[in-house]
Amino acid sequence: MAPSLQVVALGGLGEFGMNLMVVSSDESTIVIDAGVMFAGPELPGVDLVIPDLTYLQQCSPRPSALVLTHGHEDHIGGVPHVWPFIDGPVYGTPLTLALVRPKLEEHGINPGDRLIAVQPRQRVRIGDCEAEFLRVTHSMPDCIAVALHTPAGTIVHTGDFKIDQTPIDGQHFDVHRFAQLGSAGVLALFADSTNIDRKGFTGSELEVKDAFEEIFTTTTGKLVVTAFASSIYRMQILVDLAERFDRKVAFVGRGMLETSQAAQRLGYLRLPPGRIVRDVDVPNMAASEVLCLATGSQGEPMAAMSRIAIDGHRHVKVGPDDTVVFSARAIPGNEKPIGHMMNHLARRGANVIYEGIKHVHVSGHGSEEELKLMLSLVRPQHFVPIHGEYRQLSRHASIARRVTAGVERAVKVMLMEDGDVLRFDETGARLVEKVPAGRVLIDASGSGEVADEILRDRRHLSEDGLLVPVVAINKQTGSIEGDPDVISRGLAQDAGSAELLRESVQLLSDVIQAASFEERTDQGLIKETIRVELRRFFRKRSGRRPLVVPVIMEV
Amino acid sequence: MAPSLQVVALGGLGEFGMNLMVVSSDESTIVIDAGVMFAGPELPGVDLVIPDLTYLQQCSPRPSALVLTHGHEDHIGGVPHVWPFIDGPVYGTPLTLALVRPKLEEHGINPGDRLIAVQPRQRVRIGDCEAEFLRVTHSMPDCIAVALHTPAGTIVHTGDFKIDQTPIDGQHFDVHRFAQLGSAGVLALFADSTNIDRKGFTGSELEVKDAFEEIFTTTTGKLVVTAFASSIYRMQILVDLAERFDRKVAFVGRGMLETSQAAQRLGYLRLPPGRIVRDVDVPNMAASEVLCLATGSQGEPMAAMSRIAIDGHRHVKVGPDDTVVFSARAIPGNEKPIGHMMNHLARRGANVIYEGIKHVHVSGHGSEEELKLMLSLVRPQHFVPIHGEYRQLSRHASIARRVTAGVERAVKVMLMEDGDVLRFDETGARLVEKVPAGRVLIDASGSGEVADEILRDRRHLSEDGLLVPVVAINKQTGSIEGDPDVISRGLAQDAGSAELLRESVQLLSDVIQAASFEERTDQGLIKETIRVELRRFFRKRSGRRPLVVPVIMEV
Repeated sequence: MAPSLQVVALGGLGEFGMNLMVVSSDESTIVIDAGVMFAGPELPGVDLVIPDLTYLQQCSPRPSALVLTHGHEDHIGGVPHVWPFIDGPVYGTPLTLALVRPKLEEHGINPGDRLIAVQPRQRVRIGDCEAEFLRVTHSMPDCIAVALHTPAGTIVHTGDFKIDQTPIDGQHFDVHRFAQLGSAGVLALFADSTNIDRKGFTGSELEVKDAFEEIFTTTTGKLVVTAFASSIYRMQILVDLAERFDRKVAFVGRGMLETSQAAQRLGYLRLPPGRIVRDVDVPNMAASEVLCLATGSQGEPMAAMSRIAIDGHRHVKVGPDDTVVFSARAIPGNEKPIGHMMNHLARRGANVIYEGIKHVHVSGHGSEEELKLMLSLVRPQHFVPIHGEYRQLSRHASIARRVTAGVERAVKVMLMEDGDVLRFDETGARLVEKVPAGRVLIDASGSGEVADEILRDRRHLSEDGLLVPVVAINKQTGSIEGDPDVISRGLAQDAGSAELLRESVQLLSDVIQAASFEERTDQGLIKETIRVELRRFFRKRSGRRPLVVPVIMEV
Repeated sequence: MAPSLQVVALGGLGEFGMNLMVVSSDESTIVIDAGVMFAGPELPGVDLVIPDLTYLQQCSPRPSALVLTHGHEDHIGGVPHVWPFIDGPVYGTPLTLALVRPKLEEHGINPGDRLIAVQPRQRVRIGDCEAEFLRVTHSMPDCIAVALHTPAGTIVHTGDFKIDQTPIDGQHFDVHRFAQLGSAGVLALFADSTNIDRKGFTGSELEVKDAFEEIFTTTTGKLVVTAFASSIYRMQILVDLAERFDRKVAFVGRGMLETSQAAQRLGYLRLPPGRIVRDVDVPNMAASEVLCLATGSQGEPMAAMSRIAIDGHRHVKVGPDDTVVFSARAIPGNEKPIGHMMNHLARRGANVIYEGIKHVHVSGHGSEEELKLMLSLVRPQHFVPIHGEYRQLSRHASIARRVTAGVERAVKVMLMEDGDVLRFDETGARLVEKVPAGRVLIDASGSGEVADEILRDRRHLSEDGLLVPVVAINKQTGSIEGDPDVISRGLAQDAGSAELLRESVQLLSDVIQAASFEERTDQGLIKETIRVELRRFFRKRSGRRPLVVPVIMEV
């Protein structure tokens, strides 16, 4: 019998984020990426989302390796959750593994010798398969695609990529190896669809340099740039400009600090000696001498940028003459909180710069032409779009049909969603069944502690209960109108709980009284504060972690 | 004593929407525009937002006229609410008034002879002032700016505008009259800031024609286009193309139907005889012969497009070979529901086209260069940015300072927010005080009935109460997990209410059972359905209109 191969995506095919693919040959199962998705306001009380791992637990052969394409949260954020189901090593480039390690530690996992650093063009044997790593360019260093050489044929998983012809670190997209694989014959290509709805070519990371140069030239006060903590190329561009324009650099926010340190340690970020200062030093420096790189580009209520915007950061203040740059795209759903931050900053007199006003951000994902080029290079027998909502996958599929319409050997384009089982065997390739797939909601906020609390497992709400704090806030004065209330469901009906509820009403009033005017009149900020405080209170006092859904009425 | 002038914006300066400005000379008060804002998910249970009208009620002299710049909801949606406070006529162009009239009727207001149609270049006397109307171009026909000639000087309010050099209806932006006013001397300019963060010039409405021509050429099945109901230029382009490509046109959704009828009646829309069909006729026609223009471009759960996307529309179905075009921008906050609609449509096999993929939408607001041009034309003594969140106003102000830096007579740029009182008198211009300003939340859903229910007036939640329906839905199967529950606050504690609550739990189960899989697993859709049904139930049975805040847990 011909060797068979089975591919299942548990995440990333039908949504952006929580990418996870499971590939099984007759003898080996290999997992590619284990990502998370960030929960939006439509999932109240939830912090992170990971794929339903039921299939991973049950699949046969048991997974013997996890391969990581790069260090973004939507590719590695779920590693601690997937870890128990993998009987073998985790392969990734040095930077990727450096970002995985602290996540494992936070979950009390000792990786031992299971984290294996690999390099592009390297090959490792995994059972009856061989995994080969190919360098791709993206918005951070050390990203790879994976070619899995299996008994049934070679499949290529692109990871996230664009084709950056002028990479900041000089590490080029390995167009030659993709071409060789294409010449040798590829059974199936699984390719990133994120930007399939953008025409043309995505620009190089280098492109933002001109805009920032202009900003450095014209800014007389403090310069604050917010970006994703993983934007190491952007950090490098900014640190280099800071050197040229003689500003010291402060990394503000835990993510920025940790990533920059890891990247420097491994040689992915060059920080000139004496150039870096701590955020506590910023108040003692002349505004014109400071560049702050801050977390919170998405308006996350507890992150540095949100705090700075409402004048609630301990060390970094922003005022007239200062410039604040948003060097990241808005993840859909975050537009409003980001807009609120910008308004707060403009009201303090800061010059607020974002994409559109100046070219201060470039996407890390290839646009239509790059995605077509990938198809032409690899010219696979089968093509499956990955990484996107259904409309992106579907568009990528129809563009792929067009690209491959002329080639001699027909390409079979297949549209898969999370949970679909794609099987290759002697009869060809087809979707054979559907395995459990879905989302698991993880609740980790308030403490930074282990994310072990899974909503899925408390189906009836009764285990930890539901709290709905209700408060009416006068939009104009920011004051509380009427009496705040905390509605509960599923809490134990004893005297202790009743007392706890009474106290929580008081806590609710206190939290709002203590908040600044800006915080009180910004629904996103005040809701998050209420949520965090009530959760902390209940956890400490009762050991429970109720779901908290604040209702703010503006009157 | 020199004549004085006082200007107060009650809305539109600090948010997009609910534009309303009050201008008072010594003898007259004139209101310019009376708009609404649409409530996002952060204002649960609320449908519309209008400005706090306290100042309007109290201001002296009493308002003796309302001037409307154009027929968009954010400029006319609040007319019925403002109506009682105006002791005189409402001026607007014929199309604007045609769109206002049904709103008044819905509120049981008989306008009598108070709606006065005006034309560009016309002047009307209002007390000691004279209002002059200037044609501007925008995304709908019959838009004007207003020059108010007051004893203290002339002020110019641009309304919404772009400078469309090739207007669909041949009605050009009145650049000459703006220039004349500028030459004669303008005390203050109040100008639209919506697109100040876009570089260059906004394109003409005509620009989308090429993309649509291509779409008509290549679409073999049904063609469905969703746009704002007020996009009359877009309607004209599409109807003309339908004529050329021999498709019949169905207006789907109440807004589309009413606006197209009003526009045709007044001569703003040419509908060739026999070209229009009703939506009930669509099922009986060949797909290749149909063009549907549907409401719901923003993902409004009850609008035509949302219904079509989940196969819940009675007459219009979409499948493979059909093309659906989103010919409108996403209002910030609506990205996710719009994305969900697109995914549903792609899953049905439709070709989904939106901005970025093809140039199927163009903004109605001028970009940076047009806004600069307005400043150069009018060269006012004082400049106040209007229509924007704080960051847009602030950016418009700083660009204005740059534009006017070189002119011989200094321009005073002033940043105002809602409620600020700008006073012109012998000592010059300055912000003198702050009057009450804020938002009033209007709750009109479920019945289409009179919007007379103002949250502001039920401060303690206790008058109509709060309902929090809680239900856990299995994301994968769409089935209900555990027992749904309805939490209440502020309902009367009698036997009748208890019975009502019990029944509402049953209703909640029924509503979810009756919903399609797609509806059940789409938070936005199912929440809105639950909200509408529970509200209707309580209104019928108890005469109350509780605030309904559904909590959906995905498990």
